[in-house]
Amino acid sequence: MFSRVLVANRGEIAVRVIRALHEMGIEAVAVYSTAERDALHVRMADRAVCIGPPSATDSYLSIPNVIGAAETTSCEAVHPGFGFLSENPAFVRACEENDLVFIGPPADVMEKAGDKARAKAEMRAAGVPLVPGSDGVADLAGMRAAAAEIGFPVLLKASAGGGGKGMRVVSSHDELEAAYDAARHEAEAAFGDGSLYLERAVVPARHVEIQVLCDGHGGVLTMGERECSIQRRHQKLVEESPSPALTAETREEMEASVERACRRLGYVNAGTFEFLLGPSGEPSFIEVNCRLQVEHPVTELTTGIDIVREQVRIAAGARLPLTGRAPRSGHAIEIRINAEDPARDFAPAPGLVTRFRPPLGPGVRVDTAVVDGARIPPYYDSMIAKVIVRDDDRPAAIARAIRALEELEVEGIPTTRELALDILRSREFQGGAYSTSYLAEMHDRLPSLRPA
Amino acid sequence: MFSRVLVANRGEIAVRVIRALHEMGIEAVAVYSTAERDALHVRMADRAVCIGPPSATDSYLSIPNVIGAAETTSCEAVHPGFGFLSENPAFVRACEENDLVFIGPPADVMEKAGDKARAKAEMRAAGVPLVPGSDGVADLAGMRAAAAEIGFPVLLKASAGGGGKGMRVVSSHDELEAAYDAARHEAEAAFGDGSLYLERAVVPARHVEIQVLCDGHGGVLTMGERECSIQRRHQKLVEESPSPALTAETREEMEASVERACRRLGYVNAGTFEFLLGPSGEPSFIEVNCRLQVEHPVTELTTGIDIVREQVRIAAGARLPLTGRAPRSGHAIEIRINAEDPARDFAPAPGLVTRFRPPLGPGVRVDTAVVDGARIPPYYDSMIAKVIVRDDDRPAAIARAIRALEELEVEGIPTTRELALDILRSREFQGGAYSTSYLAEMHDRLPSLRPA
Repeated sequence: MFSRVLVANRGEIAVRVIRALHEMGIEAVAVYSTAERDALHVRMADRAVCIGPPSATDSYLSIPNVIGAAETTSCEAVHPGFGFLSENPAFVRACEENDLVFIGPPADVMEKAGDKARAKAEMRAAGVPLVPGSDGVADLAGMRAAAAEIGFPVLLKASAGGGGKGMRVVSSHDELEAAYDAARHEAEAAFGDGSLYLERAVVPARHVEIQVLCDGHGGVLTMGERECSIQRRHQKLVEESPSPALTAETREEMEASVERACRRLGYVNAGTFEFLLGPSGEPSFIEVNCRLQVEHPVTELTTGIDIVREQVRIAAGARLPLTGRAPRSGHAIEIRINAEDPARDFAPAPGLVTRFRPPLGPGVRVDTAVVDGARIPPYYDSMIAKVIVRDDDRPAAIARAIRALEELEVEGIPTTRELALDILRSREFQGGAYSTSYLAEMHDRLPSLRPA
Repeated sequence: MFSRVLVANRGEIAVRVIRALHEMGIEAVAVYSTAERDALHVRMADRAVCIGPPSATDSYLSIPNVIGAAETTSCEAVHPGFGFLSENPAFVRACEENDLVFIGPPADVMEKAGDKARAKAEMRAAGVPLVPGSDGVADLAGMRAAAAEIGFPVLLKASAGGGGKGMRVVSSHDELEAAYDAARHEAEAAFGDGSLYLERAVVPARHVEIQVLCDGHGGVLTMGERECSIQRRHQKLVEESPSPALTAETREEMEASVERACRRLGYVNAGTFEFLLGPSGEPSFIEVNCRLQVEHPVTELTTGIDIVREQVRIAAGARLPLTGRAPRSGHAIEIRINAEDPARDFAPAPGLVTRFRPPLGPGVRVDTAVVDGARIPPYYDSMIAKVIVRDDDRPAAIARAIRALEELEVEGIPTTRELALDILRSREFQGGAYSTSYLAEMHDRLPSLRPA
């Protein structure tokens, strides 16, 4: 096992990885930008290295700076968290060239799976159900032709992307060019790669994803689904497992197809296969995320398996303790707490958290880097805490999530806490028959979305 | 189901019960002494009633005041928590006379089981293994005779007692009278009943207890054991499940005997049967606790069953969802955080908590009523927080408990946090072969027990 690992991230996910390392008896080295000298992940780590100025491009996204931090502190491995360099094959190769074990999938798998268009071709070959769409079309003319064939509405997506960046729904030919230009710019800025592809927009759709762990010895463990349809602009807000929409048959079909896909790709470490469920409940693959996901705790609470710990064990060469389908029980829900003002169109709201009181007690887990007096910097993601609950069944889990959010106190900045409470209390969420359009459809009925 | 329940307690257990009620959609009414107007349990409840001055005798132990609070707020039931009135049959009868459902065992069961000497007779009849001892001896002469027959060392115990109050180890005839007087006074002060009994002191012994839930329809669910041998003056400090000392055969023998005893007693609601394990691993019954225990979360984390929720459901007439032996998995450890100074012989250390940061993240549960700026009153129990962890196995759970305690920050008052870390890190605890003498034997090797 490793004795020292670099955590190449910040915020709650850095804290979460540091906790896993410490529980495994491994020293954790943190990295930080000059905006985060006093951050919790820096204080919790055994050592910390400043890797640059606040701009992520010059710090958390700088391959030389991150590799340098690992080298100077004699780390043996790097955990990338999510976002930043976590799905960057160049970073994976840079790790390998510097004798650092990258805790995640190999670069070639990342290239195959991370290029969304190429991934679809692989999925087709593995018998994974797909949304009709273009395969790797990059220019506007090709987009026009593909859209004409598939029919509107279509979805433009960044080949290198994730997290909703570089994504646009297009309803007609007239809108295509403007959307294409905007999406290209956004993808270029976010991923350094503006190439786009296109697929039929499944409407209404549910977003359901399968978590998987693969070891380097052919062991594949599928861990069930996460329902992530409660989104605003393709950013997930509430996730749960099991999905209220999935039949046992569809679930098994999806998990079996993911297992086949992993074997075909030679997948190693943690990954997530994202699907849309159409109006008839049919799944269609949309993309692979070659990394840990924000919402991984949902699966940890239903399976009892510590995904980050398994990531580290797999990277160190261990076999999975079990393969096939992970046993699961109960119902888990995660609520993301963002430093945003839902009443002002989710405007980011960085600033000083004067008071932070997490919910505690039975069945509640909180992952955060926020403490009293923490300053949320304006440079990075606005997600500052996750409240995750587990209980016997969905109604009990919803009641527990409401109880937990009622206990949560964040003072100093607006957050999405009240919005999450509105969502959890809504008849539509409780009924379980929601889609990715939930937030748009409910806009006038959720009090926290109205300016005070 | 009830619509409103009085929580006749304070501190972390009141908070824990309020959480359970809220998750069940039940309104919670808190009670408080004038020393605790701003306490967390008061703020979390839907309503709160002041029941008297700081002295517990005139507030939390006052049957008329507690019943009055339930009446004026139209509560249908009362949850007593632990300590205070929780094992007082007079209180149970007062509830019944006022049409309040008492969430706990019936008064007659409490009388049978709560009188330690009478309980032993019932246990003998049910085939539960016993420590040799007196049956209901109350006076000094009888004690002398019984001790001569059993042989020293003997243990004096309060018939009405629990929690180590009114308990004395006596090594010889010369010590008996002084110990008898002291124990009588202590029992009188603590329980309003000075009667004592005597049993052979099992040395070295492990304290292992079985949690049980019984519904009013004959359903009995035994939930495995809790190992509670890490004690100081009979006050538990660290509890875990499963016990490192119990074989599967002994465990089943103990659970089967507890099931028989429950049927014989007509037991209803939650209870704990305490045993000593002698040097040869043989269990001997010591007492029944007719209430929720401080350490109940250990069992909640290994069985996944919310004991407080089941208490409420049972009191409302529901059947247990399952009976027999509760399935269990993983390993759980609870650490009690007391406002005490271990380096000054555990002197109580009430005062202002200027800063409280609970550990968070995977597999960690914190039950507490402490928040930043909370004032720990000098009038009540010194236990202010419980950190409970669960993981796959004992070594992983110990590592997680250490990680959690390293994260815990309590400023303003001394606590048992560092002592717990010393314990968890000790070779003796990690080896699992410890007894109730652990703390005395380790006194010179645990740095936190030495004055700074």
